[in-house]
Amino acid sequence: MPLLQESIQESTKEAHKIQPGLLASYRKAQERGLKLNMARGKPSPEQLDLSSGMLNALGPDELVGACHAGQADDRRNYGDLLGIPEARALMAAIMEVPPDSVIVANNSSLSIMYDLVSRAMTHGLAGEAPWARLPEGERPVFVCPAPGYDRHFAATAHFGIEMITVAMRDDGPDMDHVESLVESKEHGRRVKGIWCVPKYSNPTGVTYSEEVVRRLAALKSPARDFRIYWDNAYAVHDLGEQGDTLFSIKQACDEAGNPDRWYQLASTSKITFAGAGIAAVASSPANIDEIARQLAMRTIGPDKLNQLRHVMFLRDLKGVRAHMRRHAELLRPKFETVLRVLAEELGGQGLGEWTRPNGGYFISFDGPVGTARRVVELCADAGVVLTAAGATYPGGVDPHDKNIRIAPTYPSVEELEQASCLFALCVKIAAAEKAARL
Amino acid sequence: MPLLQESIQESTKEAHKIQPGLLASYRKAQERGLKLNMARGKPSPEQLDLSSGMLNALGPDELVGACHAGQADDRRNYGDLLGIPEARALMAAIMEVPPDSVIVANNSSLSIMYDLVSRAMTHGLAGEAPWARLPEGERPVFVCPAPGYDRHFAATAHFGIEMITVAMRDDGPDMDHVESLVESKEHGRRVKGIWCVPKYSNPTGVTYSEEVVRRLAALKSPARDFRIYWDNAYAVHDLGEQGDTLFSIKQACDEAGNPDRWYQLASTSKITFAGAGIAAVASSPANIDEIARQLAMRTIGPDKLNQLRHVMFLRDLKGVRAHMRRHAELLRPKFETVLRVLAEELGGQGLGEWTRPNGGYFISFDGPVGTARRVVELCADAGVVLTAAGATYPGGVDPHDKNIRIAPTYPSVEELEQASCLFALCVKIAAAEKAARL
Repeated sequence: MPLLQESIQESTKEAHKIQPGLLASYRKAQERGLKLNMARGKPSPEQLDLSSGMLNALGPDELVGACHAGQADDRRNYGDLLGIPEARALMAAIMEVPPDSVIVANNSSLSIMYDLVSRAMTHGLAGEAPWARLPEGERPVFVCPAPGYDRHFAATAHFGIEMITVAMRDDGPDMDHVESLVESKEHGRRVKGIWCVPKYSNPTGVTYSEEVVRRLAALKSPARDFRIYWDNAYAVHDLGEQGDTLFSIKQACDEAGNPDRWYQLASTSKITFAGAGIAAVASSPANIDEIARQLAMRTIGPDKLNQLRHVMFLRDLKGVRAHMRRHAELLRPKFETVLRVLAEELGGQGLGEWTRPNGGYFISFDGPVGTARRVVELCADAGVVLTAAGATYPGGVDPHDKNIRIAPTYPSVEELEQASCLFALCVKIAAAEKAARL
Repeated sequence: MPLLQESIQESTKEAHKIQPGLLASYRKAQERGLKLNMARGKPSPEQLDLSSGMLNALGPDELVGACHAGQADDRRNYGDLLGIPEARALMAAIMEVPPDSVIVANNSSLSIMYDLVSRAMTHGLAGEAPWARLPEGERPVFVCPAPGYDRHFAATAHFGIEMITVAMRDDGPDMDHVESLVESKEHGRRVKGIWCVPKYSNPTGVTYSEEVVRRLAALKSPARDFRIYWDNAYAVHDLGEQGDTLFSIKQACDEAGNPDRWYQLASTSKITFAGAGIAAVASSPANIDEIARQLAMRTIGPDKLNQLRHVMFLRDLKGVRAHMRRHAELLRPKFETVLRVLAEELGGQGLGEWTRPNGGYFISFDGPVGTARRVVELCADAGVVLTAAGATYPGGVDPHDKNIRIAPTYPSVEELEQASCLFALCVKIAAAEKAARL
């Protein structure tokens, strides 16, 4: 702490323009000893309480009814590699695809995505060469719309896959850039994937337009193993009554004549329990067959009792929608609090832009170029943890050092009020410091 | 069916020695239209019923007490990459290792093993080259004691890893052969692993002797990434009061100066629910660190609620032992039935040898050389499914075509009586056919 105070005094010396009131407010905030966290895109305890009923939804009595104990399909025993039919139907409804195009796994869609990439590395896709065996000049490349989801980028980097950043716009990735990469005569064969969070995108909250979805589906890729990794993590996570509409990636790919191009992911991590949900992948029949053949080497089957527990509790898409309305009631005041404070404190001052999403888990803030890391640092030293600046970019480096991901779901409304005020204060200080340096 | 009857008549023509009574009995058995299965090493519904109490062991009330709702370690939320501390302690007790050497995952130890191999392929172990990048002449090799567990061999083959079969003896693998492979000046560097089911081995029921464990630990391998894959699937699965004792692989490796050589696996698949248990890996601090770093790329954490549910139900090792005694009460009569019928029908006739295990899930039967496939075929055509002959060997090929794995856990005692009688009958027929051919 003394170190930082010194550094503020240092920059104060340089930055004659910083209003003394700002620093006084910041010191006062520091003295309050806040301990708040706007970094983590995780549900609050109150949201988790909404699913308490699921804990006992599968007692011994319910099991007898649902499990056909003693039969081959006893859900307590081994088997059902692709998940139980009821859970496949439920996750299919959430993803708006046919049930037989769905595999339901355990609790993590990140694991499913990691495994898709891992198997492509070791075994290849659709009969193409394993990516791990490609010679130096032909190593795989992923297109990474950014700001995006840090764990996509981390997993990709983990496998040594090259990442090319593409800008995120209001309607999805910059498709001119995507096309120039995927359809490149010179390098297009190396481009094996694109990461997409197509609805209420992490962190910008953007939902891809139909035009963008159709352009993705129609990409003329020279690589037979090019895939769209369609991480539909917020498929039913509307904040208001009228949510965004996402055009079907399956339909778009089918109509574009590229039926095997997509993997869609979804989970109940932010529907029921973040740590104990169920996750699923959907794809074309050929891709599901390919995954199933490889999956059979890794497991005898998923945790079918947790799948059944989910089905008993959520029942169907109508049940999911009703449940998600209760989440929205808890989340709306939180998003509104942050957005109100940002508007009050930073509105119309040219100190930043931010998103007002209709769903999802994040608000994306773009401050003045070259200030994001400093804002995160100032917040941290006053007790408010934000997502590391740059985390939303491949390699953890934001080329403009301006994007900050705000996660308003976990803290209480009161905590968000305090944290947002401090955040706005830190943006003003960082902007003033920067102006003084210029 | 007609096809088989013809083939029996064919062989009958050749085989004047087959007593007509045998064929008459076989035809009578066929007419009974049996539909039995001694192939699958899975618990019976009655065994699964023993864990019914676990289904409601974690209701909302219990959760409040155990979960510290609202705290950072809320077990409903994300986190706890290595598993919850209570579950790590429970699985550590089962594996007889310290809790901080344990990672508890989801429902499948096969998945943990597959991932260990998969990560070695893509990233390498202990700083050594990724196996997928090794040049042609240096490709990895696994030592496979056989008969062994078919899924070990299938996963290994799936990654293109060469398998070398080593004979299983009464005290474990043929260690002279293992030493000659692992310590080979010419090829030892290529040998990266050995698959072991060290207690109540699948399928022979053998528990490795202390001498074998110590010789494995002391192997002078020139490969820094050589590992013993210690699949302790039946660690607490005694059939009688006095179970076998397995010497600690951790202690043996520590004492031999090879502390990073072992991965121990275990699960509750055959303790609670085969499809919805919890699985764990234990290893040295360096290996656990390495796994944790890679695991963080794949998941935010395991299903902690199912871990907590297990802890609430089983409590501790004493609870596990009490629970396993109830399993043993259900399993003993089944093993005894098969062993009695085998002794009555085949004893002292030179028609085969079989194991009388003190625990585990299998009886291993060795018939006359060149008869196993025929026995399995004859049984199948009379309605009794056995594990495919050869399945217990790498590549699915038993060089002597004599080993058959009998799984007595799933059928009822009555069914086992019928199935075993038919099995013995088929052994006699196959042996007679073979004698006639000689």
